[in-house]
Amino acid sequence: MLVGDVVIGGGATVSVQSMTNTDTRDPGATLVQIRRLAEAGCEIVRVAIPHADALDGFERICAQSPLPVIADIHFDHRLAIEAAHRGAAKLRINPGNIGATERVDAVIDAAGEAGIPIRIGVNAGSLADEYHDKDWPLAEKLVASAVSFCNHFQDRGFKDIVVSAKASSVNATIDAYRALASTLPYPLHIGVTEAGTSFSGTVKSAVGLGVLLYDGIGDTMRVSLTADPVEEVRVAWEILAALDIRRRGPELISCPTCGRCEVDLVAIAQEVEQRLRSIKTPVKVAVMGCIVNGPGEARDADIGVAAGKGVGLIFRKGEPIRKVGENEIVSALMDEIADLDRN
Amino acid sequence: MLVGDVVIGGGATVSVQSMTNTDTRDPGATLVQIRRLAEAGCEIVRVAIPHADALDGFERICAQSPLPVIADIHFDHRLAIEAAHRGAAKLRINPGNIGATERVDAVIDAAGEAGIPIRIGVNAGSLADEYHDKDWPLAEKLVASAVSFCNHFQDRGFKDIVVSAKASSVNATIDAYRALASTLPYPLHIGVTEAGTSFSGTVKSAVGLGVLLYDGIGDTMRVSLTADPVEEVRVAWEILAALDIRRRGPELISCPTCGRCEVDLVAIAQEVEQRLRSIKTPVKVAVMGCIVNGPGEARDADIGVAAGKGVGLIFRKGEPIRKVGENEIVSALMDEIADLDRN
Repeated sequence: MLVGDVVIGGGATVSVQSMTNTDTRDPGATLVQIRRLAEAGCEIVRVAIPHADALDGFERICAQSPLPVIADIHFDHRLAIEAAHRGAAKLRINPGNIGATERVDAVIDAAGEAGIPIRIGVNAGSLADEYHDKDWPLAEKLVASAVSFCNHFQDRGFKDIVVSAKASSVNATIDAYRALASTLPYPLHIGVTEAGTSFSGTVKSAVGLGVLLYDGIGDTMRVSLTADPVEEVRVAWEILAALDIRRRGPELISCPTCGRCEVDLVAIAQEVEQRLRSIKTPVKVAVMGCIVNGPGEARDADIGVAAGKGVGLIFRKGEPIRKVGENEIVSALMDEIADLDRN
Repeated sequence: MLVGDVVIGGGATVSVQSMTNTDTRDPGATLVQIRRLAEAGCEIVRVAIPHADALDGFERICAQSPLPVIADIHFDHRLAIEAAHRGAAKLRINPGNIGATERVDAVIDAAGEAGIPIRIGVNAGSLADEYHDKDWPLAEKLVASAVSFCNHFQDRGFKDIVVSAKASSVNATIDAYRALASTLPYPLHIGVTEAGTSFSGTVKSAVGLGVLLYDGIGDTMRVSLTADPVEEVRVAWEILAALDIRRRGPELISCPTCGRCEVDLVAIAQEVEQRLRSIKTPVKVAVMGCIVNGPGEARDADIGVAAGKGVGLIFRKGEPIRKVGENEIVSALMDEIADLDRN
């Protein structure tokens, strides 16, 4: 499936999505946010269309966005139809809150005409009517709703579908996606919904999406955080990198420090992490607080430092190169990385 | 197995560990940190003994610590033996860096006499000699080393063992622990080592430990971060809560905000998160940015707010209770939680 120029599913690499939280009626501000998201590694962006007064802004956003734009629609099927006409690369609806079948069908037909996919995004707040009051576990209700919506779309001849079934419970999310992966032939958009603030939301998303991705489930992902959406993109990439699925730029490993540590390693590691953000090379960098254990424990790092009292021992692949003073550690490390980059 | 009064393994709940990064020679500072860790939910604490001059401090720490104290020893077996005599509730050694068999045996015997367990903590920096240069994947070398050390301990009649085999690679860590779980009868201490700063380390740990815990692997856990160790404890609890394994205090769900949101939800959610830290009741609290979708999507929350332009709709279990002004949202929510707490 194609969303703009991004392939989803069919063995394509897992793509990273986010959603703007600016006012869609302000396309300037929204485009600024989309460019920041793109810079952070976002590959597809979703934009809400709450009311008809956001349609003009949406159209301008689609025309000027560096990323494919998904229209996020709740309740009002007419907005979805309009969005398809105005440049959306994909629609996201929850058929459970669009209402009558004819309305859903009108959206399906509009997407078909525009040649764009639809995400069927089911969540706990809007299940298919027939499952709403069943006394089933939430995951089963989500899956049954998603399957019944998919069947309806198929019956209407529309198969350009991505499916999501997010819960705010990590276990329910995992259960739902495992069932979907074994039931449906469509690409899956994975995420834990209402995951929380950047702290708890990061952990919940990393656990939930980590378990799914480790099992090969998920074709495109969104980390939901109550935070700047740029954070969502950073967390998504970090999850993908943690599982060696995809990596953007360098990997930093650093030891947790202990009673052996004689330098301010937290400050050094944070500064290195900050400065690595501008480096595109996928080098593995180690910041270790123990001159004795450091080089050995981090022997698979391309470049690293083991810090002792007042000094840093710079090493490559576990082999010491030179010693520098504590104040020079960060710059020496960055020099060596730049040097690696040139070679 | 008992570490102080904490049961590890045999179906006991997964316990949370951390490690001090103060100077062990300064028992006052170390005890202050241990009390902060205990307050955050740490249940067992590890303290490094880098040199013999830290032994007196270690002894005083053990005597006054509110948590069982594990002595972390590298290289010098005499320090491990001394620590066993001076009040350690457990020893952590890596036999691969202790050296000659007689030295390892002397540590085993000292632990046996003191009646305390030993963690065999293998990592990439110190594998068993015979596997060091094998051309195997790291996980296999870690597992083979751990198994060979365990066999040696058993042969000497010592079975009070916890095993860890941490790598800085999440996949290698998962592979190693899966193999250990199906091979060894001993409790497993799980962790991703040198996971990085509080950002990348949180994600790596949540992914790696999440995958393991989801599969029921892991009896005690440590999240390693290059950060204040209190952060390690918070992340560990958040991972356990994400999988509904254990929970400490309230759960906060909050929506990621979108173009529909008309209040500063990020600020509200962060303030609520901060204020919930002092609440011990396991209530589920929702902070939603959409007055239309909010109550429905968060109907399983005990208490919540759906914020619209200038107002917040307070709801319980999806049912609206009352509307308050935007500035009163946080205090109204906290009042309702206090009220729940009383009933």
